[in-house]
Amino acid sequence: MTIYKAPLIDYKFLFEDVFDVYSIYQGLPNSSDLTPELTDDILEQAGKFAEQEIQPLNYPGHEEGCHWENGKVTTPKGYKEVYKKYIASGWTQISENPNYGGQGLPRIINAAIGEMNLSACAAFGIYVTRDGSIATIENNASKELKEKYLPKLIDGSWGGPMCMTEPHCGSDLGLLRTKAEPYNDGSYSISGTKMFITGGEGDLAENNIHLVLARLPDSPKGIKGISLFIVPNILVNDNGSLGDKNSVSCGSIEHKMGLNGSSTCVMNFDNATGFLVGEINKGMRAMFSMVNKSRFTIGQQGTALAEVSYQNAALYAQDRLQMRALTGVQYPELTADPIIVHPDVRRMLLIQRAFAEGSRAFNTYIALLFDKQERTVDEKEKQTCTTLLDLLTPICKGFNSEMCTESVNLGLQTFGGHGYIRENGMEQFVRDARAAQIYEGTTGIQGLDLLGRKILASQGKSLKVFTKEIHLFCEENKNHQQIKPFIDRLSKVNNQWLELTLKIGANAMTNPNDVGAASVDYLMYSGYVTFAYFWAKMAKVAADKLENNINNNINNNSPFHQAKLQTARFYFERILPRTALHAELMISSSDNLMEMEAENFVFNS
Amino acid sequence: MTIYKAPLIDYKFLFEDVFDVYSIYQGLPNSSDLTPELTDDILEQAGKFAEQEIQPLNYPGHEEGCHWENGKVTTPKGYKEVYKKYIASGWTQISENPNYGGQGLPRIINAAIGEMNLSACAAFGIYVTRDGSIATIENNASKELKEKYLPKLIDGSWGGPMCMTEPHCGSDLGLLRTKAEPYNDGSYSISGTKMFITGGEGDLAENNIHLVLARLPDSPKGIKGISLFIVPNILVNDNGSLGDKNSVSCGSIEHKMGLNGSSTCVMNFDNATGFLVGEINKGMRAMFSMVNKSRFTIGQQGTALAEVSYQNAALYAQDRLQMRALTGVQYPELTADPIIVHPDVRRMLLIQRAFAEGSRAFNTYIALLFDKQERTVDEKEKQTCTTLLDLLTPICKGFNSEMCTESVNLGLQTFGGHGYIRENGMEQFVRDARAAQIYEGTTGIQGLDLLGRKILASQGKSLKVFTKEIHLFCEENKNHQQIKPFIDRLSKVNNQWLELTLKIGANAMTNPNDVGAASVDYLMYSGYVTFAYFWAKMAKVAADKLENNINNNINNNSPFHQAKLQTARFYFERILPRTALHAELMISSSDNLMEMEAENFVFNS
Repeated sequence: MTIYKAPLIDYKFLFEDVFDVYSIYQGLPNSSDLTPELTDDILEQAGKFAEQEIQPLNYPGHEEGCHWENGKVTTPKGYKEVYKKYIASGWTQISENPNYGGQGLPRIINAAIGEMNLSACAAFGIYVTRDGSIATIENNASKELKEKYLPKLIDGSWGGPMCMTEPHCGSDLGLLRTKAEPYNDGSYSISGTKMFITGGEGDLAENNIHLVLARLPDSPKGIKGISLFIVPNILVNDNGSLGDKNSVSCGSIEHKMGLNGSSTCVMNFDNATGFLVGEINKGMRAMFSMVNKSRFTIGQQGTALAEVSYQNAALYAQDRLQMRALTGVQYPELTADPIIVHPDVRRMLLIQRAFAEGSRAFNTYIALLFDKQERTVDEKEKQTCTTLLDLLTPICKGFNSEMCTESVNLGLQTFGGHGYIRENGMEQFVRDARAAQIYEGTTGIQGLDLLGRKILASQGKSLKVFTKEIHLFCEENKNHQQIKPFIDRLSKVNNQWLELTLKIGANAMTNPNDVGAASVDYLMYSGYVTFAYFWAKMAKVAADKLENNINNNINNNSPFHQAKLQTARFYFERILPRTALHAELMISSSDNLMEMEAENFVFNS
Repeated sequence: MTIYKAPLIDYKFLFEDVFDVYSIYQGLPNSSDLTPELTDDILEQAGKFAEQEIQPLNYPGHEEGCHWENGKVTTPKGYKEVYKKYIASGWTQISENPNYGGQGLPRIINAAIGEMNLSACAAFGIYVTRDGSIATIENNASKELKEKYLPKLIDGSWGGPMCMTEPHCGSDLGLLRTKAEPYNDGSYSISGTKMFITGGEGDLAENNIHLVLARLPDSPKGIKGISLFIVPNILVNDNGSLGDKNSVSCGSIEHKMGLNGSSTCVMNFDNATGFLVGEINKGMRAMFSMVNKSRFTIGQQGTALAEVSYQNAALYAQDRLQMRALTGVQYPELTADPIIVHPDVRRMLLIQRAFAEGSRAFNTYIALLFDKQERTVDEKEKQTCTTLLDLLTPICKGFNSEMCTESVNLGLQTFGGHGYIRENGMEQFVRDARAAQIYEGTTGIQGLDLLGRKILASQGKSLKVFTKEIHLFCEENKNHQQIKPFIDRLSKVNNQWLELTLKIGANAMTNPNDVGAASVDYLMYSGYVTFAYFWAKMAKVAADKLENNINNNINNNSPFHQAKLQTARFYFERILPRTALHAELMISSSDNLMEMEAENFVFNS
């Protein structure tokens, strides 16, 4: 069985030392009551809940899975009780709008809690994440709809499944067929079938408020004819009480590779009553107002599973005795040395660690941007935050999920044959993690979004906002003795990032396929540079802390800060070099991909 | 549900055109009766059996798994019937020794059949592979034991599980505790617990002939005190009939990530009667006499799963309509273009294809070496074959299994959300493939075996045998107009291979950890160069065929050969560049891995 310990020490380091978040919140409206003490207290409690209540659900829920019978979905044993406790403790309300019952604390707190939940049990953690639905309603719906639905979504009584995908369309929502026909009273009749609906039906919340994309009869074809609707599973009376059952039903649940405790539903809407959110035919815009938040959550899932897999692999490597070190016997009192003496085992562990901690820093930076974007009164700063969020979200979603799959596979590998055995829990992380590269847009979609929509479409302007920030950091620290080798490497890949973008942009003028051919390598390159920036930032703080201890004759060599510096070195020497490969591949012509005739991809012998 | 088509056309191309195997067998004793017609006929029949009989077992067996009740193991529904048909058709006998009932055909035939079986259903394919056990007995046991056990192993009536691993030792067999105590009659009493025993118990064969590693009471510690025993599940009378049940029992079966149809057993030996194979204390040597064959089979599993995943992904990409091509609408009559128009989908498919076909060529080369090694009367040639097999086996096992996991994950990714759904079959390939990186020695073990035992221990001599062959091929073809760019790249990485080896060898003199730190990158580098050699060989043949058609005014642009050339180009332009990264990493010092204190790998907050 696996263990999990909430990474409180790392969050404290990030909040206080790396990002100095308390000073930032001092300067934002309604935010200054966030103190280190309050944060520590909340995260400690949340960590305890994740470790003690949520984590025990993880493996049994993987083995049991969800059940579907006559349209009713049951979650695995124990989910219901823990869910009740979770919402009773108010965890879903932490960072939501106080006008609707939220506690209004910054999103970085909620984000940290979200990571812990997902580490403890990814399938359960998904059920208690509803930032996306809440934001969609909050930003797009009428005052009446907001007042009717938000309080119960925020206090966790109701769930808010997003209903986009249909059997014949996932990435390409322009093809969707679900129909919406107006009734006389301003509501709509919604009919169609949605699939891959996470939490579409279940036994945790007393009601589900579906957010459904559908098409009016006279709407244009494609994505310009799609509108967004609230379709409650049980209709809600004007006084807020539950009314009649709506014509919404769950046709089946999927049997998946992983995330078995999370129900993935086929949802049938059969002349169900729905309520328009925002304007007719502007459904995609409304839905995409929350896409950054939903995708960020998937990026966090990457961090979460990499972290818990790492923790278990590192413990195993300290315990498992097998062979002697190449340099000779290290533990003569034991029958063999623990496998952590082997360089290749450390290589695997350090990839996991560099990724888990690097992505946590990256996620914290993004959560900070969400807070600043929402709270600042400085319009220019707000715009900068929006630009950065649009740029960084596909990197966070796409790169984190790719790195996570690499990481959890290495965690399994460290266990050797025992990693392949279900009871040991390492294979569950691999199976749960695999979804993150797919849902909320595959890695391919993230690559195109980043390179095409976000960067080339703005002539690279959005990218320059971020590379300039990195450039300034490099300039400030170029003479910092201990991290100079990191700064030199970071500076080089940061400059190259812009050069590569220009080159691909030029190629794209003559052949648009060159963008598609470059996109995933471009995404990966971008991820490695982004992580390098955060690793350099962390290394600087760690180096300064250690230096400070020496200067002040403090007798503490701080293993935490030493390990940060060592992991940073590992990142720069053994992971960042991957950028050169992606750089070469992304400017390889698309010809080597496109020249084969489609029909020659398969030969019948 | 997935499909599978046996790659007969590719095998014909490899046997006749790339390796010219019929000329080779003409020059070997007892081999000249192999004709293209005979081969085509056998492979066609074997392909049909794999497609029609074995493949239908695949997905249902994944979902059902094996059953254990009171020590009895039952395989999934249908396995037993197909197994009976399989052995009745004589497929297990194809390449075995005619003295014991084999048909004595070259191993390349058996290897091709093995790949097809594993593609059709990996779990089933494992049950019918027993080359390793047969070779171990044939090469090490007494005449009496051979005559008693080989015929039934070869005709498939009996299985031959290899029993090495124990709960506390997998990679490090020196730690094993299973005891062997001599009886007066020359037999032994065997006691101990073995785990991860593939096919240790089941309902397919009427008896299992376990090959068990155990230690005599007065034997030295470590691997020098291990002996090998035959321990039948049911004792065999002198007349060959089945006698008493031996004290061998299956304590449980593992619940695994994949290969659910293949029973993985805990085997208890409780004063079971065993018979010594070879000499006392030379058990490791005896067991390792077959290790190349067993590891080769795992390398083939890589090819097999990559191939079947590719076939399904390519078909899906031709069918699935989603979005329009970046260059504009390609199929105006359809609601959207098939996803094969997207460069990134092609990138994923071509990685799969380049790997499946490249590894098939590599495997065929190795199977040829097995044949030449066994059959040639030229001692020098035999020695060269042995050297090459020792060198290439860890590459085949380690690299093929790593590339396979990458490949099957890309196959799943091409399906998008549908890839994550069990019924669609793509996730099974990911789960089944994952074992190959672990069993018969993890990738880390293969890396150390290759770099340490095979290359550095021989001062690089074994490597030079292979790099010289590549060098000669490059010299011969350096002016070949169409493949010149490939030859240039191959020649460069081939030279670099030796240089890197020298560098690591020099580093290792001062710090043995540098070998461990380099080993997996070295393995991967070696794999990419090896594949480049076989891709260049295939490209040359394909280019010559196409040229020949033009010169002779043959009106056939041969899509098969064009696709080969195109896939070769893809390999050289988009896969081979990975070598530069591995080259950089393998000479990165081990310091960045070793400097962190073992206890600092985990922080308790």
